[in-house]
Amino acid sequence: MPMNVAQKLIQSHLVSGEMLPGKEIGLKIDQSLTQDATGTMVMLELEAMGLDRARTELSAQYVDHNLLQTDFKNADDHLFLRSACQRFGIWYSRAGNGISHVVHMERFGIPGKTLIGSDSHTPAAGSMAMLAFGAGGLDVALAIAGEPMAVQMPQILGVKLTGQLPDWVSAKDVVLEMLRRYDVDGCRGMIIEYYGPGLENLSAMDRHVIANMGTEMGATSTIFPSDPTLRQFLKAQGRESAWSEIIADPGAEYDRHEEIQLDQLEPLIACPSSPGNVVPVREVAGREVNQVVIGSSANPGLRDFWIVGAIVKDRVASDRVSFDINPTSRQVVENFAPMPEFLSLMHAGARFHQAGCLGCIGMGQAPASNQISLRTMPRNFPGRSGTADDQVYLCSPETAAAAALTGEITDPRQLEKLYDMSYPQYQNPADVRVNTDMLVAPSEDGSSVELEKGPNIKSFPEFEPLPDAFSVPVLLKVGDNVSTDEIMPAGSRVLPFRSNIPGISDFVYYQVDETFTDRAKTAKEKSGGHVIVAGDNYAQGSSREHAAIAPRYLGQVAVLAKSYARIGWQNLVNFGVMPLEFANPEDYDSIDAGDELAIEGLRIAVEQDKPVTVKNVTKSQTYEMTEHLSDRQKQVMLSGGLINHFKSKLT
Amino acid sequence: MPMNVAQKLIQSHLVSGEMLPGKEIGLKIDQSLTQDATGTMVMLELEAMGLDRARTELSAQYVDHNLLQTDFKNADDHLFLRSACQRFGIWYSRAGNGISHVVHMERFGIPGKTLIGSDSHTPAAGSMAMLAFGAGGLDVALAIAGEPMAVQMPQILGVKLTGQLPDWVSAKDVVLEMLRRYDVDGCRGMIIEYYGPGLENLSAMDRHVIANMGTEMGATSTIFPSDPTLRQFLKAQGRESAWSEIIADPGAEYDRHEEIQLDQLEPLIACPSSPGNVVPVREVAGREVNQVVIGSSANPGLRDFWIVGAIVKDRVASDRVSFDINPTSRQVVENFAPMPEFLSLMHAGARFHQAGCLGCIGMGQAPASNQISLRTMPRNFPGRSGTADDQVYLCSPETAAAAALTGEITDPRQLEKLYDMSYPQYQNPADVRVNTDMLVAPSEDGSSVELEKGPNIKSFPEFEPLPDAFSVPVLLKVGDNVSTDEIMPAGSRVLPFRSNIPGISDFVYYQVDETFTDRAKTAKEKSGGHVIVAGDNYAQGSSREHAAIAPRYLGQVAVLAKSYARIGWQNLVNFGVMPLEFANPEDYDSIDAGDELAIEGLRIAVEQDKPVTVKNVTKSQTYEMTEHLSDRQKQVMLSGGLINHFKSKLT
Repeated sequence: MPMNVAQKLIQSHLVSGEMLPGKEIGLKIDQSLTQDATGTMVMLELEAMGLDRARTELSAQYVDHNLLQTDFKNADDHLFLRSACQRFGIWYSRAGNGISHVVHMERFGIPGKTLIGSDSHTPAAGSMAMLAFGAGGLDVALAIAGEPMAVQMPQILGVKLTGQLPDWVSAKDVVLEMLRRYDVDGCRGMIIEYYGPGLENLSAMDRHVIANMGTEMGATSTIFPSDPTLRQFLKAQGRESAWSEIIADPGAEYDRHEEIQLDQLEPLIACPSSPGNVVPVREVAGREVNQVVIGSSANPGLRDFWIVGAIVKDRVASDRVSFDINPTSRQVVENFAPMPEFLSLMHAGARFHQAGCLGCIGMGQAPASNQISLRTMPRNFPGRSGTADDQVYLCSPETAAAAALTGEITDPRQLEKLYDMSYPQYQNPADVRVNTDMLVAPSEDGSSVELEKGPNIKSFPEFEPLPDAFSVPVLLKVGDNVSTDEIMPAGSRVLPFRSNIPGISDFVYYQVDETFTDRAKTAKEKSGGHVIVAGDNYAQGSSREHAAIAPRYLGQVAVLAKSYARIGWQNLVNFGVMPLEFANPEDYDSIDAGDELAIEGLRIAVEQDKPVTVKNVTKSQTYEMTEHLSDRQKQVMLSGGLINHFKSKLT
Repeated sequence: MPMNVAQKLIQSHLVSGEMLPGKEIGLKIDQSLTQDATGTMVMLELEAMGLDRARTELSAQYVDHNLLQTDFKNADDHLFLRSACQRFGIWYSRAGNGISHVVHMERFGIPGKTLIGSDSHTPAAGSMAMLAFGAGGLDVALAIAGEPMAVQMPQILGVKLTGQLPDWVSAKDVVLEMLRRYDVDGCRGMIIEYYGPGLENLSAMDRHVIANMGTEMGATSTIFPSDPTLRQFLKAQGRESAWSEIIADPGAEYDRHEEIQLDQLEPLIACPSSPGNVVPVREVAGREVNQVVIGSSANPGLRDFWIVGAIVKDRVASDRVSFDINPTSRQVVENFAPMPEFLSLMHAGARFHQAGCLGCIGMGQAPASNQISLRTMPRNFPGRSGTADDQVYLCSPETAAAAALTGEITDPRQLEKLYDMSYPQYQNPADVRVNTDMLVAPSEDGSSVELEKGPNIKSFPEFEPLPDAFSVPVLLKVGDNVSTDEIMPAGSRVLPFRSNIPGISDFVYYQVDETFTDRAKTAKEKSGGHVIVAGDNYAQGSSREHAAIAPRYLGQVAVLAKSYARIGWQNLVNFGVMPLEFANPEDYDSIDAGDELAIEGLRIAVEQDKPVTVKNVTKSQTYEMTEHLSDRQKQVMLSGGLINHFKSKLT
């Protein structure tokens, strides 16, 4: 059967399951990518699992998120990650070397390989015919440990590109057109595969722009073929040997179909506060702009900076506009600096920053209150910029540069009239300066390397296997639809403790019941733990693992609920908290906070798939409970969680 | 009588007093400089004074401190300052255009002029034979309004420089040698004037390095002559016409004498955590380094960046070292970028930041906990970096660059052996690229310009003239030595309200008595205000004006104390809180918090220099109080504070 590119990569990595859309499949993972904001927990999980050395073909850790260093924590994290990379055999990309997705593409990506990354824009690697997925920290840790990745077989959406982009229209406008058509959830459960004659006119970095923002449509991933354009890119990077052709077979089919005529596109812009609010720039032209930011993984290429420099040449950014330039990688800077357009940019008033994500993830660069900020970034969710009432628009570098000059939203095609300007024609530099010096190679043998932990970095706690019997108090009784935000809040007070389970545990349920943590610690000491009782749809919302890890750290042995939200339920199992369900939901009403509940023979019940009887010692009642664990999950549960489980597998 | 340079400038600007060390003199102020962290309050004070237009020859506002923008406040401040500059006729240097002291020197400084700045390193302008002072916000506001500046006539310390600096030793080592000799307080009450044949070998920017850090020795100011070296500097800046010769007369004398033989100097370093802890670099060589930061107003010149680029050429910073480059001004970047040493720096792993103060004032770049950071900055006070247990060393660019390469503190002279390197010889570029585009000129007439105030920027409150009679409660009774930190705390929670008197008033005394603010507001409503009672040395410590402004805003009409600290007392007068002293200190014991105190005939008492009688309505007692206001202060007090006073003068 003729196959498209996505199918070829899935088939070549399939270790379990059938390639039927919606069915779970297991995929061998070749490479992994972590960034610093999520990578510290991944490294702590690898430590807890007792992993000796990464089992992927290549793993790389980037420092691109937490670069502000307003106190010791960021810098401590960088030293910790550096040591962990040496310990586990992972490449370490130093702070300021650039954004993970782009550096990975420049230095490590290989067409035909799979990639998992603890960052939602990991599918950007689809620009080089990699099958790439964003995932949570533990999923990435397991992949580094050599486990296959489980994913539901996606539908493949084939997008045929024809024609050539007009002047003043660039790759960002292509993906904005997709967002205009599909909004922020129209591609859920899909891999977007681009093909067709229009591809010829899109460079590898243009494709990166488009693949990167596939995430914004909810796509599982995005993929492009590996063709002569990609070969040229890899050759310029000194890595031509990494190239192989991967294109759809003649007659290959797609589950769904779309087509974009590139020559019909015009400059587009996503209005506040959703990447899906896309309109033609001309429809919102004239609005006063206070900030223009160029950069991020959603417009990372040398061309994207060059074009801005070329447009502002011999001119100056409007004096109301903060004109911020966030270079993507050190390599981009090294290639850009010798070009006259670099000086044009500086002279026009650029605030030229170190390479990294910066304002894209709200690390500085917050705009003024209720002012318009134009950004070449992938997201404009409300408040993400750091300013609560922000007015962030997403657009191409051309549209952003036009606003920098005029001080208002401007269709860049107007520049021809306004400044008697013709569309600047970019040429790739003849020789690309390749910089590998800021990438620290893993040592041959890291087994003796000490992990360097600052005072806010704590080892992942050791958890006991599932107990067979316990008698513990009900510490809290909650209602229906309790979210992970209530269990484990986020926010600036709590997030700095993400690499510190003991520290973050002080905030479990603290907005619901300030005494929870103290009472849990007392119960752990006196009775060996606690349970909580909940209604329907327990642990809904954000997928944060800490909503299971931290209660577990505080001694939570089980939750008794009417029902669970899917991801929250998986997380409880993954970290060894027994998720029990009431066989008779009305039993929920009989239990009060403070009751003592006893269970005996729990391990045997799990092993033998029997119902579990809970005795209410306080009220002299009994309740029948059930569980719905898969065979694999039962093993995980008995081990005391996924980390223990893999620890035993690894040793 | 033959005069030295300092005496010449003082004499030519003297409007009152005699030039006898220790006596108060009044000086005409020609120019002013404000930065964003202190400038917003200056502008609010100008607004409150009803000033129409700056009366200095030139005033300039820089945005160099608050560049991180972690929320809307910084960006709002920038827009506010921009509008205030248009309103009051002040030059506006846009965010990222560079550090005030350096941009001012490049673009505005004129030998022979006086300069006041709301930044303690303002005396850096002494490098170009300006008489320059750092001062508080209201002092600067008054100077902008045309008032002379009052200062105690300093002693002049003449420092004779002879010889020429050896290889690997530069200007920073000269001022570190001064700090080694004088420590952090040895030059209080002095102007340091450098002279002698050694000057020939120090460029204008070298002199800036030395003048800048005179502040660290407690000096009132530092000054250099205006000689052919300065003429050359101004010529390169396209401003040769601003130059005039100002040198000491033959036979001029100094109050105190010092001499430095430049050829005897070796690389020096200030150890944690004081700029005065200076030792030769070789004595601390070998200590592991985690961060190297190049930049700040204490090593601002193109040469200082070039030399680092030249030293690291074709090499890479140690992979434990965060190698941060903070360019001083956009103009420095524009001149540096075309040089090969710029690329060398980038290639060696520089984290290249926007132009500004950044880590020098703890705005990011905090080092890892308990790790060594080498910085070319002026200060290493404990925790100033943002990391509580920081280990910050201050040194020359040469010493910093050596540590970046080796990863440990290294005498840069060792580089000759370690890397077979000879000392790089810097040549000024033939043509200096001058950038004036990021300086927004004041409008011809700003009277109709609206001040653009974000939600956290509030106009300076209007205060009533001194009441003649009141009967108000004693809201608080405190003991001896109460500091302004207790009255008006600093810290990250309070500081963001520095441009918002109503907002910051919520924190008055809140660490002493949480109910203070609420009770003050109630008393203001019910009784028209309140008083507080204090022991000896009231309002000691930091000079912050908010410790007077905010209580006044809350309705404080008077303080009854045994005695006052000098600056705290001045601030009370300046903002219209009557500072009364017990004629009989034992009366302090008779009053309790909650007592109601009444005064009648206060204005007449002040006008006619009579004692004030306070009646304790609650206890039916009377107390005799005194005050020690000068005639000028009496006028200020009667007006309700200095701003009201000048408002009446201006209209």
